[in-house]
Amino acid sequence: MSYSEAIVAMATPPGTGAIAVIRISGDGAIAIADDIFQSIKSKKLVGQRTHTIHLGHIVDNGKTLDQVLVSIFKGPNSYTGEDVVEISCHGSPFIQQQIIQLLLRRGCRTATAGEFTLRAFLNGKMDLSQAEAVADLIASDSEAAHEIAIQQMRGGFSNEIQKLREELLNFASLIELELDFSQEDVEFADRSHFKNLLDKISEVLKKLIDSFALGNVIKQGIPVAIVGQPNVGKSTLLNTLLNEERAIVSNIAGTTRDTVEDQISLNGINFRFIDTAGIRETQDMVEKIGIERTFDKIEEARLILFLFDNPDFDRAELERIEKKYPNKEVLPVCNKLDLLDDRQKELLKDEFPHVLFLSAKHRKGIDELEKKLLSLVDSGALSGDQTIISNSRHYDALLKALEEIQKVKEGLEMDLPSDLMAIDIRQALYHLGEITGQVTTDDLLGNIFSNFCIGK
Amino acid sequence: MSYSEAIVAMATPPGTGAIAVIRISGDGAIAIADDIFQSIKSKKLVGQRTHTIHLGHIVDNGKTLDQVLVSIFKGPNSYTGEDVVEISCHGSPFIQQQIIQLLLRRGCRTATAGEFTLRAFLNGKMDLSQAEAVADLIASDSEAAHEIAIQQMRGGFSNEIQKLREELLNFASLIELELDFSQEDVEFADRSHFKNLLDKISEVLKKLIDSFALGNVIKQGIPVAIVGQPNVGKSTLLNTLLNEERAIVSNIAGTTRDTVEDQISLNGINFRFIDTAGIRETQDMVEKIGIERTFDKIEEARLILFLFDNPDFDRAELERIEKKYPNKEVLPVCNKLDLLDDRQKELLKDEFPHVLFLSAKHRKGIDELEKKLLSLVDSGALSGDQTIISNSRHYDALLKALEEIQKVKEGLEMDLPSDLMAIDIRQALYHLGEITGQVTTDDLLGNIFSNFCIGK
Repeated sequence: MSYSEAIVAMATPPGTGAIAVIRISGDGAIAIADDIFQSIKSKKLVGQRTHTIHLGHIVDNGKTLDQVLVSIFKGPNSYTGEDVVEISCHGSPFIQQQIIQLLLRRGCRTATAGEFTLRAFLNGKMDLSQAEAVADLIASDSEAAHEIAIQQMRGGFSNEIQKLREELLNFASLIELELDFSQEDVEFADRSHFKNLLDKISEVLKKLIDSFALGNVIKQGIPVAIVGQPNVGKSTLLNTLLNEERAIVSNIAGTTRDTVEDQISLNGINFRFIDTAGIRETQDMVEKIGIERTFDKIEEARLILFLFDNPDFDRAELERIEKKYPNKEVLPVCNKLDLLDDRQKELLKDEFPHVLFLSAKHRKGIDELEKKLLSLVDSGALSGDQTIISNSRHYDALLKALEEIQKVKEGLEMDLPSDLMAIDIRQALYHLGEITGQVTTDDLLGNIFSNFCIGK
Repeated sequence: MSYSEAIVAMATPPGTGAIAVIRISGDGAIAIADDIFQSIKSKKLVGQRTHTIHLGHIVDNGKTLDQVLVSIFKGPNSYTGEDVVEISCHGSPFIQQQIIQLLLRRGCRTATAGEFTLRAFLNGKMDLSQAEAVADLIASDSEAAHEIAIQQMRGGFSNEIQKLREELLNFASLIELELDFSQEDVEFADRSHFKNLLDKISEVLKKLIDSFALGNVIKQGIPVAIVGQPNVGKSTLLNTLLNEERAIVSNIAGTTRDTVEDQISLNGINFRFIDTAGIRETQDMVEKIGIERTFDKIEEARLILFLFDNPDFDRAELERIEKKYPNKEVLPVCNKLDLLDDRQKELLKDEFPHVLFLSAKHRKGIDELEKKLLSLVDSGALSGDQTIISNSRHYDALLKALEEIQKVKEGLEMDLPSDLMAIDIRQALYHLGEITGQVTTDDLLGNIFSNFCIGK
């Protein structure tokens, strides 16, 4: 009930555009809109049909704020399941703020992050994993991430979980029924059917769990740090990979101070490149801070490109980095390949079997580097129809559910008494229910929806 | 006819938000949307009523791109007067781009800047000054600017011009009729009525022309440069005025390199403050560039705050700036007033009668500074109901029209022959028509609409 209060938020990105959309949802949403809106046809919105659009003016105390289009959606046929009004106003941040403030004075309150979608979930318009997919969809910035999110939003994966959960719930009931008749040693639940179901569930869970490695990479992208001494061409390499002048390039050592990041998409996978300050001893305070940040950034990276531009570069630096980050792959990359003769290349290859040669400035060897990056990802599953999990909350719940299912299976093999088995089954049901939202806590919901943007 | 081709553009600001709106207008807009849209009710959009909203999916070659709401507006009852479709999709830039690209493949072309509004003008949905007000409205970032734009968009001022123009056109016809009977020396046009009309037009034009000084200030804001030697507290003053930590403050001379700009609104007027690099001799290349930019920025400013923090500051610097910018008001401002005793203050006041004392750090004297800034603007007209012109194109046309009207008046007094007078009247009609768009050229339209954002 506390969720039916009218809430308001901007639904479009901040900034100036042709139009902006303000969204209201909850009890009295349409009446509140009527209160500030004068239709050019002098009609009240309350009497209008759902899914219709009305031209008019937002008026505050006789003063016209803007000419707008108002869309009305009557619950339950709306995004949230409640009455929803969308005001499409001119895209000036000033006007947007004026209208929002007016709505707040007329009884709306500001929506919290994800509150529209939370209400959609609470009103049964979507299950929890579908709601989470909405946020993923908005954040999706590559084809692969988009595909996973849309599949999840359409419910493919949570439907499957839900069906399995219901079958399991059936067995749970039967087994719990046995408890009532425990003196009589009857078995209502067919043990071999039950074993088949457990096998099926395990298999599905395992497949989903396995897909997470790829799903996570698709969702997060792969961070790649470009490190090396000053002036070896780190910023030039970043610009070449991005195909734009992203970082300032000069021949003055120490040009890059702030770390510069940007990403490219290769075969639908995002690689986020981090250009770092050249590592050197420096007296410049700001540059010093930059170099400290370099090490923080390397911490985040999954792969480190160690760039050098001279066969006689300082090996100690490379070793220091390899030693400091024993779990990260460090790839030696020799820039300015035009300056090397074949003999020098051979010697470097002997010393560093994985070394790549390229010229960032002349775009040579970039394809090989990109191939090397892609080889890090086993993207075979992407082409198939397999469901891919990209949400770490789902991953955790799936792991826990699988663990419980294994326990039930072992119990079944060991012919465990029904009452003990029932506990493990309930646990498995709990974790499966967490994914679809059939089991929720306020904490869980708070956690999930606080990661949404406001207005969704 | 070339204007009926279907065009498409993003209507909402770039970036990530809950939703984004893609707008299509022109011939076949609804059929094109039908081509990529699958309504959840399996209904075609073409058969639907105007101003209705439909839920469904954007599908490309069997692949679902997004779940969307589609709004349809059938011409002439739309913004452009043509068939218009608005697709409200999830606010991921990736999805927006995918849908736009799909629409381009299905026969839309990218809209040019302001093309939707240009079509609205060409289809008679609004006059030219109203169309211009749309752009002003979107750009409006203060109450005063917003008020001027909305008044202009609702047609108050162009209606008046248009009415006067029609009356003038009447007289023009009568006077031109006299030419046909020139042998007979008849006067169809009542000269005293005509003189009254000319007086009325002059009066209106003069008032509008006079309002431009204020209107322009309201629209553009007043640029104020904060200059002074390093470490006198320029960035602190900027932050205090803005009430936020906008510029990086440190006690290291030369902290500010890039000029930092931001604005505040005082009584509905925007003041744009420009924090500049402290002026000093320096060997630091980047700081040097910063100091050069300082002088470029001063060039733009209307008012210069010369900040110092010590009664013994270098007068030569102040004199140099006053000499370099003889047409700009330079206001000496003494920061860190707590460090001064009364005698020092008196001496400074004797030397600089306009000096202001303040403490940026402790927010003292800021009100006096703001009052001083406001005194630069005669904002009396703002409170009244007077129409204010803020568009320099209108200003030019009004000036030219007034000039021609004066010529006609002189001609009338000198009893000039009708044929000569008719030429001046036509000129006045031409310039008045330029404002409302009754007279246009492709160049003029191109100029106006290229300043719009794309999608409007």
